Amino acid sequence: MAAKNNICKGLSKVTQMKLKSGMTVDDLVKEMGRSGVMGAGRISHASDIMEKMFVDKDCTVFLGLAGAMVPGGMKAIIIDLLKSGKVDVLVTTGANLTHDLIESLGYSHFQGTQNIDDKELNKQKVDRIYDSFMPNEVYEGMEDFFEKNFDKLAKTKKNIKEFLWELASLLPKSDSILKTCYEMKIPIFCPGIADSGIGLMIWGHIARGKNIDVNAFDDLKEILQIAWDCKRAGIIYLGGGVPKNYIQQAMQFSPKGADYGIQITMDRPEPGGSSGAELREGISWGKMSKKGYFVDVICDVTIALPIIYASVKDRMKI
Amino acid sequence: MAAKNNICKGLSKVTQMKLKSGMTVDDLVKEMGRSGVMGAGRISHASDIMEKMFVDKDCTVFLGLAGAMVPGGMKAIIIDLLKSGKVDVLVTTGANLTHDLIESLGYSHFQGTQNIDDKELNKQKVDRIYDSFMPNEVYEGMEDFFEKNFDKLAKTKKNIKEFLWELASLLPKSDSILKTCYEMKIPIFCPGIADSGIGLMIWGHIARGKNIDVNAFDDLKEILQIAWDCKRAGIIYLGGGVPKNYIQQAMQFSPKGADYGIQITMDRPEPGGSSGAELREGISWGKMSKKGYFVDVICDVTIALPIIYASVKDRMKI
Amino acid sequence: MAAKNNICKGLSKVTQMKLKSGMTVDDLVKEMGRSGVMGAGRISHASDIMEKMFVDKDCTVFLGLAGAMVPGGMKAIIIDLLKSGKVDVLVTTGANLTHDLIESLGYSHFQGTQNIDDKELNKQKVDRIYDSFMPNEVYEGMEDFFEKNFDKLAKTKKNIKEFLWELASLLPKSDSILKTCYEMKIPIFCPGIADSGIGLMIWGHIARGKNIDVNAFDDLKEILQIAWDCKRAGIIYLGGGVPKNYIQQAMQFSPKGADYGIQITMDRPEPGGSSGAELREGISWGKMSKKGYFVDVICDVTIALPIIYASVKDRMKI
Amino acid sequence: MAAKNNICKGLSKVTQMKLKSGMTVDDLVKEMGRSGVMGAGRISHASDIMEKMFVDKDCTVFLGLAGAMVPGGMKAIIIDLLKSGKVDVLVTTGANLTHDLIESLGYSHFQGTQNIDDKELNKQKVDRIYDSFMPNEVYEGMEDFFEKNFDKLAKTKKNIKEFLWELASLLPKSDSILKTCYEMKIPIFCPGIADSGIGLMIWGHIARGKNIDVNAFDDLKEILQIAWDCKRAGIIYLGGGVPKNYIQQAMQFSPKGADYGIQITMDRPEPGGSSGAELREGISWGKMSKKGYFVDVICDVTIALPIIYASVKDRMKI
Repeated sequence: MAAKNNICKGLSKVTQMKLKSGMTVDDLVKEMGRSGVMGAGRISHASDIMEKMFVDKDCTVFLGLAGAMVPGGMKAIIIDLLKSGKVDVLVTTGANLTHDLIESLGYSHFQGTQNIDDKELNKQKVDRIYDSFMPNEVYEGMEDFFEKNFDKLAKTKKNIKEFLWELASLLPKSDSILKTCYEMKIPIFCPGIADSGIGLMIWGHIARGKNIDVNAFDDLKEILQIAWDCKRAGIIYLGGGVPKNYIQQAMQFSPKGADYGIQITMDRPEPGGSSGAELREGISWGKMSKKGYFVDVICDVTIALPIIYASVKDRMKI
Repeated sequence: MAAKNNICKGLSKVTQMKLKSGMTVDDLVKEMGRSGVMGAGRISHASDIMEKMFVDKDCTVFLGLAGAMVPGGMKAIIIDLLKSGKVDVLVTTGANLTHDLIESLGYSHFQGTQNIDDKELNKQKVDRIYDSFMPNEVYEGMEDFFEKNFDKLAKTKKNIKEFLWELASLLPKSDSILKTCYEMKIPIFCPGIADSGIGLMIWGHIARGKNIDVNAFDDLKEILQIAWDCKRAGIIYLGGGVPKNYIQQAMQFSPKGADYGIQITMDRPEPGGSSGAELREGISWGKMSKKGYFVDVICDVTIALPIIYASVKDRMKI
Repeated sequence: MAAKNNICKGLSKVTQMKLKSGMTVDDLVKEMGRSGVMGAGRISHASDIMEKMFVDKDCTVFLGLAGAMVPGGMKAIIIDLLKSGKVDVLVTTGANLTHDLIESLGYSHFQGTQNIDDKELNKQKVDRIYDSFMPNEVYEGMEDFFEKNFDKLAKTKKNIKEFLWELASLLPKSDSILKTCYEMKIPIFCPGIADSGIGLMIWGHIARGKNIDVNAFDDLKEILQIAWDCKRAGIIYLGGGVPKNYIQQAMQFSPKGADYGIQITMDRPEPGGSSGAELREGISWGKMSKKGYFVDVICDVTIALPIIYASVKDRMKI
Repeated sequence: MAAKNNICKGLSKVTQMKLKSGMTVDDLVKEMGRSGVMGAGRISHASDIMEKMFVDKDCTVFLGLAGAMVPGGMKAIIIDLLKSGKVDVLVTTGANLTHDLIESLGYSHFQGTQNIDDKELNKQKVDRIYDSFMPNEVYEGMEDFFEKNFDKLAKTKKNIKEFLWELASLLPKSDSILKTCYEMKIPIFCPGIADSGIGLMIWGHIARGKNIDVNAFDDLKEILQIAWDCKRAGIIYLGGGVPKNYIQQAMQFSPKGADYGIQITMDRPEPGGSSGAELREGISWGKMSKKGYFVDVICDVTIALPIIYASVKDRMKI
């Protein structure tokens, strides 16, 4: 009898979650925390960790953005996170920046469906991103924008971060991830920038004999310096890919690895890729602190992020 | 130019979700609906469909319960759904009923972890259900309960549904799925009942030469009659397995297949099993109405169900 | 320097797999074993464990069959496994038995597609199982068969295992899982039998006032006795669901839990259900031996099973 | 009766797969093709498409390499593919190149386990990649290599492709992906090169005030020119990420989109990211030809690739 208590004695009971009409998101997350297990437990754990890293004045927060956040409806939430002043570094795919730019230029994504004949979409010049549709005409708008601005962008040698800030400076006023980073002086890193609609626009000018001198390695020294200088580090991964991996790599240079960590992903760990890797794997590499607070939320970002952050906004009155 | 408008013209734009400090769960779900795509869009769609099927007085609602809902903290929400009067039929695994019974007998599940040495748990007599722990002593409590009640249960020939209601009638007063169904006269079906701790308890008596005459097929006529008689049918699948498949099978006998459908699952469709099958596949079989409202929510039930139902509770003041 | 050797010193190197024109499946599996990691490593590990459990004369082998094995093209492989004499107990879903019966009656499944309008399929009376099609007319054939045989089946009281053997005895000669089990005297358990096309056929007669007395719990004493009596136990799970869980439950009564274990599944562990649970979780419950050989193969059964078993057939000249 | 034949009449039956002792991998794949459905059907379909694209003399083949192919034991198979002369373009993550380089320098990966305390690994300076281990000392070897070669690499301005070929030219003779591409004059693209151990090595020199001028956008014109010039295009995606997306983007500039396509992935489409997107989605964008042959194999690359390619090697005597 004694034996079995050793393990369970120190543990909280699973409290069955209770719902109420009119409850707030933070009420819900707290109920999830009372149950404490499986997906609900992880959501609640993620809210607690996000709050901890945002409250910690000595924590430098790195946000990694993969996937299709803008056509997935997450743009305003990302901007809210950036404007809160809690995020110090943004690493993203080129796709997110391209869709952000597209909306800045006045275009929209549409609520479509994946149960459709893609040949018909092609005929009608509509590009599909799962169940989100984008009219192909956005490329014309981007071409006009880069036609007007390429020479300014190409004037001086620069690295990718500098290129993105300069690009942002040229954008019209708008609810934009790029613009917000520029205005808030949040460094944006995008190692794979050539792999995006923005890359294609640059190519359009290179192909016609123009030149733009953007260094592929140079801004490494900025992100690694930030990691090196930080007292404590917090990481938030919305999906995996290059953004996650690039921050993970920087964490190897932070004093003791990340102290706080949240990743939201639907990828699995078993195939061995970086995107699906559990955060605890990072401890072996020194990317995560042995004493850190981490959680892997196995969930669609468009479901988990709004819950987690709405709850933190309520707690911290952001 | 005209062409591309044909498709997008009729569609809503993806509106970037906005969060607010203090927002309610229903506010959140409505924001998810404004974005309308990917996981967020499906959560919002599921709330709308649940509301529709609950408001529809002529709709008979079938709830399928797989997985580990009680150790996962979902018991009170299931009971709330049952007590709302909106659920007409419950189909469940034996595991859910066993964990429900265990809590009725005064035991608890604990907030554990999956990152643990299972040999150590075994030594300490703790059973693991992913990150939920259950002290093995619960079996003693179940044995006492069945020791006291077996003869009553075995007195008459019965089918599984009758067996479960009788079992429920013998339970102590408690927050219990079984008891609630019994009190609300909601039929419970559990075709795989032998595959559960309850099955093991019955076996304990059979092994000692006792007899209990529970018919494996007999209650089919009840669930199929309910399906046959219903004017419209609504289905809610929390996970897959036998509960989903058993209701799907009943739907073939409803007048035109289910009119409303929500499934929440993390299983994939590609391996071809029933658990991961998209609801639209049911249209081919006549299990789903060609004109029905359906949504597949690809999410952990312990995350999606609380959001969806909290939002519906708010809208309908349940 | 010394420290780091402690862990890697005892380990095999990852040897990069080499392919050759004309290589056998067993050659391939051995190459996978030389790499030893990720999916390939697990396939190879599974072949080794299957060989071990088949070679071990004192090992009782339990095969659990979920999913859609027959429309997925796995029937002949299952029959081969049964006929090899290496499998002692079969636990299955009703769906597998129903599709097996359908083919016994002369019908076929067809190579279809999931990218199709299910309304059109419904109009043409074709039932879809992911990308496998089944003409709905199979139900007429089943009805005729049960019309002819119901009275024989219903003559005596029986349990589910006895029901299935008797059903098998009435089948025409054919390549059939059911028939093979009957002929080889391999007990078949199917706790959820009411949840299947076979269940529906029985209901068709109950609904017309006929009676059939099949006990839902009675055959528990047979499977648990087999588990109790076995010197060593081996388990093979093709998918999860009731078949896996029912064998897991039986393993609690084997002398020390299963000694050999293979599960092939695409389900994830994080949602907490039995289907996706890692085999090591079973150690806590006493379902798996602390000293057992186990592997979780995260793969579509229709890919992994043929490779694993073809390799074992070669090694053992089955 | 007539109606139902319309759909099934034109279809092949699901033929139950048969296994034989000593069968070759190609025999197995052909059996999978006879069943034609689910995972097995897709493997077989992938072999057929790979054969088609390799036989087609006018087809330019683009290979995308994500994930952890080298620690996962796939290096020699990739090299075999490259040496076959069938692959015209390689796009990869920096991680694959880094692990390839590490083995070129004489280090190994080890067959580890994911069920381990990462803190202990960290103490012993072992880095974990799921169940593959890498001693951290590999970084010393890389530092030595770059110390010796940095100045050569930095001598002239170049783009990433040129950088990688030059890096390859400096490598010791070895079984290496990089070296093979260099020797075969297969262009390698790696837009995210800064996100890798190689990136870190370069940073090590930048941080000490050295300079290396590698252009982030410049090689876009090479891959897009290849896409533009090709008569027909074939794509093979091993995992998703930047390699897949970068090739997809190039396909928009091929005459009519890819004519042949194979992707092997465990990612799901529902979250909306590029990695999990079904190939058919590319038709809407013009990345895939409307008349192309495509297949999505939902499987661990380390399982599916060896089977598919071993079968093609046999058929084509590669």
